[in-house]
Amino acid sequence: MSKLWQKSSTDTASETAKKVEAFTVGDDYRLDQALVPYDIRASKVHARAIQRAGILSEEEMDRLHSALDEILETWKAGEFEITVSDEDMHTAIENALIQKVGDLGKKIHTGRSRNDQVLTAMRLYEKEQLGNILQQTRQCAKLLIDLAEEYEQTPMPGYTHTRKAMLSSVGLWAGGYAEMLLIQAEAASGVTSLINRSPLGSAAGFGSTIDIDREKEAQEQGFDKPLVCSTTSQLSRGWIELQLVQYLGGVTAVLNRFASDVIRYSGEPEHFFALDDVVCTGSSIMPQKKNPDVAELIRGGQMEMAGYAATLQSATVNLGSGYHRDLQLTKEPVLKAFEKTSRLLEASAILIQNMEPIPENLKKACSSDLFAAEAAYEMVKDQNIPFREAYRKIAENPELASHIRPESVMKKYTHLGSPGNPGLTHLRKLCSSDS
Amino acid sequence: MSKLWQKSSTDTASETAKKVEAFTVGDDYRLDQALVPYDIRASKVHARAIQRAGILSEEEMDRLHSALDEILETWKAGEFEITVSDEDMHTAIENALIQKVGDLGKKIHTGRSRNDQVLTAMRLYEKEQLGNILQQTRQCAKLLIDLAEEYEQTPMPGYTHTRKAMLSSVGLWAGGYAEMLLIQAEAASGVTSLINRSPLGSAAGFGSTIDIDREKEAQEQGFDKPLVCSTTSQLSRGWIELQLVQYLGGVTAVLNRFASDVIRYSGEPEHFFALDDVVCTGSSIMPQKKNPDVAELIRGGQMEMAGYAATLQSATVNLGSGYHRDLQLTKEPVLKAFEKTSRLLEASAILIQNMEPIPENLKKACSSDLFAAEAAYEMVKDQNIPFREAYRKIAENPELASHIRPESVMKKYTHLGSPGNPGLTHLRKLCSSDS
Amino acid sequence: MSKLWQKSSTDTASETAKKVEAFTVGDDYRLDQALVPYDIRASKVHARAIQRAGILSEEEMDRLHSALDEILETWKAGEFEITVSDEDMHTAIENALIQKVGDLGKKIHTGRSRNDQVLTAMRLYEKEQLGNILQQTRQCAKLLIDLAEEYEQTPMPGYTHTRKAMLSSVGLWAGGYAEMLLIQAEAASGVTSLINRSPLGSAAGFGSTIDIDREKEAQEQGFDKPLVCSTTSQLSRGWIELQLVQYLGGVTAVLNRFASDVIRYSGEPEHFFALDDVVCTGSSIMPQKKNPDVAELIRGGQMEMAGYAATLQSATVNLGSGYHRDLQLTKEPVLKAFEKTSRLLEASAILIQNMEPIPENLKKACSSDLFAAEAAYEMVKDQNIPFREAYRKIAENPELASHIRPESVMKKYTHLGSPGNPGLTHLRKLCSSDS
Amino acid sequence: MSKLWQKSSTDTASETAKKVEAFTVGDDYRLDQALVPYDIRASKVHARAIQRAGILSEEEMDRLHSALDEILETWKAGEFEITVSDEDMHTAIENALIQKVGDLGKKIHTGRSRNDQVLTAMRLYEKEQLGNILQQTRQCAKLLIDLAEEYEQTPMPGYTHTRKAMLSSVGLWAGGYAEMLLIQAEAASGVTSLINRSPLGSAAGFGSTIDIDREKEAQEQGFDKPLVCSTTSQLSRGWIELQLVQYLGGVTAVLNRFASDVIRYSGEPEHFFALDDVVCTGSSIMPQKKNPDVAELIRGGQMEMAGYAATLQSATVNLGSGYHRDLQLTKEPVLKAFEKTSRLLEASAILIQNMEPIPENLKKACSSDLFAAEAAYEMVKDQNIPFREAYRKIAENPELASHIRPESVMKKYTHLGSPGNPGLTHLRKLCSSDS
Repeated sequence: MSKLWQKSSTDTASETAKKVEAFTVGDDYRLDQALVPYDIRASKVHARAIQRAGILSEEEMDRLHSALDEILETWKAGEFEITVSDEDMHTAIENALIQKVGDLGKKIHTGRSRNDQVLTAMRLYEKEQLGNILQQTRQCAKLLIDLAEEYEQTPMPGYTHTRKAMLSSVGLWAGGYAEMLLIQAEAASGVTSLINRSPLGSAAGFGSTIDIDREKEAQEQGFDKPLVCSTTSQLSRGWIELQLVQYLGGVTAVLNRFASDVIRYSGEPEHFFALDDVVCTGSSIMPQKKNPDVAELIRGGQMEMAGYAATLQSATVNLGSGYHRDLQLTKEPVLKAFEKTSRLLEASAILIQNMEPIPENLKKACSSDLFAAEAAYEMVKDQNIPFREAYRKIAENPELASHIRPESVMKKYTHLGSPGNPGLTHLRKLCSSDS
Repeated sequence: MSKLWQKSSTDTASETAKKVEAFTVGDDYRLDQALVPYDIRASKVHARAIQRAGILSEEEMDRLHSALDEILETWKAGEFEITVSDEDMHTAIENALIQKVGDLGKKIHTGRSRNDQVLTAMRLYEKEQLGNILQQTRQCAKLLIDLAEEYEQTPMPGYTHTRKAMLSSVGLWAGGYAEMLLIQAEAASGVTSLINRSPLGSAAGFGSTIDIDREKEAQEQGFDKPLVCSTTSQLSRGWIELQLVQYLGGVTAVLNRFASDVIRYSGEPEHFFALDDVVCTGSSIMPQKKNPDVAELIRGGQMEMAGYAATLQSATVNLGSGYHRDLQLTKEPVLKAFEKTSRLLEASAILIQNMEPIPENLKKACSSDLFAAEAAYEMVKDQNIPFREAYRKIAENPELASHIRPESVMKKYTHLGSPGNPGLTHLRKLCSSDS
Repeated sequence: MSKLWQKSSTDTASETAKKVEAFTVGDDYRLDQALVPYDIRASKVHARAIQRAGILSEEEMDRLHSALDEILETWKAGEFEITVSDEDMHTAIENALIQKVGDLGKKIHTGRSRNDQVLTAMRLYEKEQLGNILQQTRQCAKLLIDLAEEYEQTPMPGYTHTRKAMLSSVGLWAGGYAEMLLIQAEAASGVTSLINRSPLGSAAGFGSTIDIDREKEAQEQGFDKPLVCSTTSQLSRGWIELQLVQYLGGVTAVLNRFASDVIRYSGEPEHFFALDDVVCTGSSIMPQKKNPDVAELIRGGQMEMAGYAATLQSATVNLGSGYHRDLQLTKEPVLKAFEKTSRLLEASAILIQNMEPIPENLKKACSSDLFAAEAAYEMVKDQNIPFREAYRKIAENPELASHIRPESVMKKYTHLGSPGNPGLTHLRKLCSSDS
Repeated sequence: MSKLWQKSSTDTASETAKKVEAFTVGDDYRLDQALVPYDIRASKVHARAIQRAGILSEEEMDRLHSALDEILETWKAGEFEITVSDEDMHTAIENALIQKVGDLGKKIHTGRSRNDQVLTAMRLYEKEQLGNILQQTRQCAKLLIDLAEEYEQTPMPGYTHTRKAMLSSVGLWAGGYAEMLLIQAEAASGVTSLINRSPLGSAAGFGSTIDIDREKEAQEQGFDKPLVCSTTSQLSRGWIELQLVQYLGGVTAVLNRFASDVIRYSGEPEHFFALDDVVCTGSSIMPQKKNPDVAELIRGGQMEMAGYAATLQSATVNLGSGYHRDLQLTKEPVLKAFEKTSRLLEASAILIQNMEPIPENLKKACSSDLFAAEAAYEMVKDQNIPFREAYRKIAENPELASHIRPESVMKKYTHLGSPGNPGLTHLRKLCSSDS
């Protein structure tokens, strides 16, 4: 198939031309498969817009809509092909359109460019994927709250500097991670406001003389409003995507630290949590091993998220405005970041459902050195001496804390967010508020 | 002065101990200067909270408040000192307090830890600084809109692939950057929701047995609500800061690209913009040079923002929950990122006010090759032939576009966001909506 | 096929187990295809080592060698399959071995682990690939030197601050990029010394009680020497790979800047270089466009290299010693970085061969403002006044430089590395010295 | 003092000009303090070069040398001042020179530019600092080898997946880190070859018409050779610095992981290592705590190194060749990276000297589950059954390993790099080979 911009198809013969084609197309023809339905959705809206602008008759628009619907069906059936020589989905779809409706198919490109097409498809994709990620994020949080509720006041050592420090509880530990996920879900408002603006109609970055109603077009696609200036669309490419991938990295960073805790606490000698075999694997050389591979790969996923963000970070720096071909390379890290985040959330949900606190081990670990601060507080309250004084007394004589038991201290923790009152009802509210 | 946690002050004698002190304190004693007023504000709220919890009498609280106010005055006068041996502001302030009110000063640390203190001071600082940045960002956008308005329909070439592509206008060019800044300001909602939660009362990360009303405490500091679980506070350290610095990097990325355009377009042979001498410097070896140093350093600032984010990116990865001393190192990149962003915005405001479009040069550059697409559109509209066909005709015979003039085409650009209608009233609305 | 560490194959039935398998195996089964010949090479050396240690008879070793050779032939024919359920190439190869030689196949895993196997295969792969990259790098440099030689003293403006500054020449411009590539090739000595050490025999990271001669084993694989301590092997995983990918990024950074120059200088209004159609593409909306896409994608490749490095940067930070499953994820960025670097070098070679300086445009751009410094130097030499004084005179009266012509100045540039004497014979020597 | 490039000093009056000056100078006037001796050294060599070229008489050169020596003495006494209005050290030194020798001082700038001056000073600085870092790196390695020797065969559990896996030894553990440092020191050959090339004489990036002998000049400064093409010098700025900082990050990455091990193993419940009080600090709220702050801050230092590299990574990407003012910003991350690396190595040396293995705890942790693989190997050797078979037997019945004792197994570890033979003499040789 000939490409849209190609003057003649005779100059592609040489070996060099083939290498150049492979180099310039890259993986686009494969990556675009995921974006086809979004490009079709935007194409239908665009057809309506240019019909309103007088470029198409209503009947022509209807024929284009039908043909686009058919292409979508072909895609759903897994039979829509994009080849290296198509270069990208835009050409592949337009070629398919021409096959179906003849010359009319060539009219649809009026008033648009592949520059605004790909951006629009990406933003539609991003909106939908972000919605999925937020759902998965809240689902993970709910599983953590379930765990927190079941073991709400089960004593657990709290660590600072990787050293036992103070009394904590399983409710507080699991609740903390749930809250991290929930406040991150809430903070999606920032990137949502960015991706909720339609680039369609900006054409190659400077608009067109076709009188398209860009606000109506935005609305018909489900966006809040258009990106106003056509130049903004190209400036936003990569820039919004970077912020989006950084946002996703904020989700997976929580999983990274959660997994780090699980790896440590499910192992010897702590053994605070039992992991089901389904989330463990063995060793090819050490028969006794049961390794927390799922947790390790959740932890490790963060390195890939850092990579996707770094790719986008370098994408547009120091470049002037307007489209540059380099921007094509921003597509892959976005698609991969969404896929990875989704897999990490799914694996985390599995991990949470396949781990179980072991109360006797947790309690055994709550030795009296956790209660030195509490002993000092007791002195403050009972003997009315300043905290600093009490602190020095305990430091000199740690035995002053040996009479304290986890159960009795747990009851004294009454403030919101303490081991005895982790605030799970507050978290439940966060779950539902905006999902 | 002895440190809060030090058992005796006799073991600091040796050379090694001094090196260790220098290494562990690092630059904290200097960096903390900027945070003193926030720590004092939070300390006053904390004093009220432990008074309500029965640890202090009202009279004691009042004395602490007065003493803290005095310390604030000393700081405002530039006379509050934090030394290496103080280690940080928390100790310096507490020592000053004890000097003023004696043993009562030691009581204020009841129910808190330096862990929640520093976090609270940071978040109060971040809230205030972010507010300033947003104001500066909108101010810059307004200056760009002023420029856009003055030269709204002045023709300017639009570039793709660093090649002349289509007609644009100064209004569209400047408006695009204004919009970028404005939508980024709006997207601050995400990070704002993260920093608008109080960590106070989480103590060392596991709360305390002092019955502090954390919701009231949050409110009294001007936060929306508390971070619920005490564990969340420590988990959020560095994590929220990373997202904040990434957000700021989203602001400065716009300036980076704006400056890139200015550097190119203010130079020969384009010379679209004249730069005032005040934003240029000369060369030590080439007497004829007038260099756009201010624009170059605005562009270059992005590298430093990338560095601050990367520092925070590595901060907590793979670490288990709970405080780690490493987190101390997250303070500097945040303070520096705010300072840098503010300076870049200030320099950009100066640059915008000291550059001027040169309409004759801009117009001269709008040669007929910009109108090839327009010529194709004319054929579509006038001769009712498909765009693809028209495209091939023009490609074969570029002369078909030579009759088109910028002024006449400009009038045909009617849709929102096109060169003839950049949408500046829409942008003005964005300016005011949430400032 | 059952996995090496699996106790029974009955527990893989459930849905969750399948998801976990997909998650833990990831893309390894695909990525490993490229590593098969290296794993086979190391396996043969290992078989010899355990034969020497008395685990295998010579005859057994020979049978294993033959079977491994057969597997290699299968792979060369493109018929060696690694499935998700194989998990990785190690299991797939061992299973194939057992199919061929029965129980004997199970003996080969004595004294090794998949941990040292994969590391060894990676390092053998890296050695070979790095050799290829260095060859391509020097090849690119040679093409640049050819170009430099042909147009050695063709005048070209030299820019500072993106402003015309002083006289340069095409020879100096192209020579500068050639030198960058050549000194980077020479600097490969650093990473070469790191990857030239064999991890084989370190087993799971703590060696084994099989008395393997690790120095002989290293030698037989073509390594310089072994990584001595078995613990070092696992510590080096990801750490050496990061340095390697950073090194490759140093190569591609040169291409990034070269491409940036080509993009600017091949466009209007400079048009210093003509690009052949084969390295350009068109626009789907603007019939007149000829875009430097190949150069743009060479420039853009740097963003992906930054991503691969960032992935590895996060890989092992804050982790204790010993193998962690996270390390599996370090494989992909290494393979991709090598592939990308090779493609960028190939595309650059094509670009260099398909661009041509346009001497008349270059000369026209060498206007008299390039000679202000030269005019100052003339005063220094002819009138014996200090440079600073001459500088001020020219700055006040630029006309003092208008009599100077590029050709005459070019002759005055005699020192090594100046426009008139770019030092191409020095560069030729660098090309051959260590290739 | 007026700046070198300033046409008149009357236009600096306004408020804006002051802000611009503060913005453009940045911290350069402070950072340059560390570079003064290198700039003076290069200036002396340059004076000799232009004397040879006939610009200076011998007597003039001698006077300049004496004056430069005096300035160096002033600097050594801590009395050489660089102010914001000086802009940088180059101007400050030249101004001082003019004060001392009058108009002759103005002659020294003939044939050079601040562009090659700052680069030369940086590379001289880098050479010297890198030498210091390598010395400190080998010193750290030696301390680790000392530790390894003292406890060479002290049993220690070896971990994979953060799980006890196989027998290791303190000798192997400490030796592994020593080897990492030593092979990294050896790998300095790469960056050394890059920084060992003189940029002097490249002037503003295009050489000059002064006939400077650049090879002699390189030699006189202690460089191996010149960067040949003048254009290479500016292209190399930031690019070499990035590779250098990445190299330093390779050193500190080893310390990051070493510290991670120390933090875990010095804490409960393992308590394999005792830390002296001098490397620990306490808690302001928990009197019982003894925290490994020094180790944590060594670990955390890696985040700052990542930041410095990321700053440089963004510095020149997508920029055309030739000097850009942005490059000024590459100075700070290099200076900071060297300082940080040096401090981290110093702190690590202190840590190593203040930690002590606790053999009884180490041995107690070497429980029989470490010996499952060994039990399998015994079956392989004693019963001649394939490893895979033995593996399955042990997996089914772990008791088959319970008879094995650490001491007896340790003796069986004979190969180079195993717990019983960590290869410390090999490491000693690496220490001395190239120091």
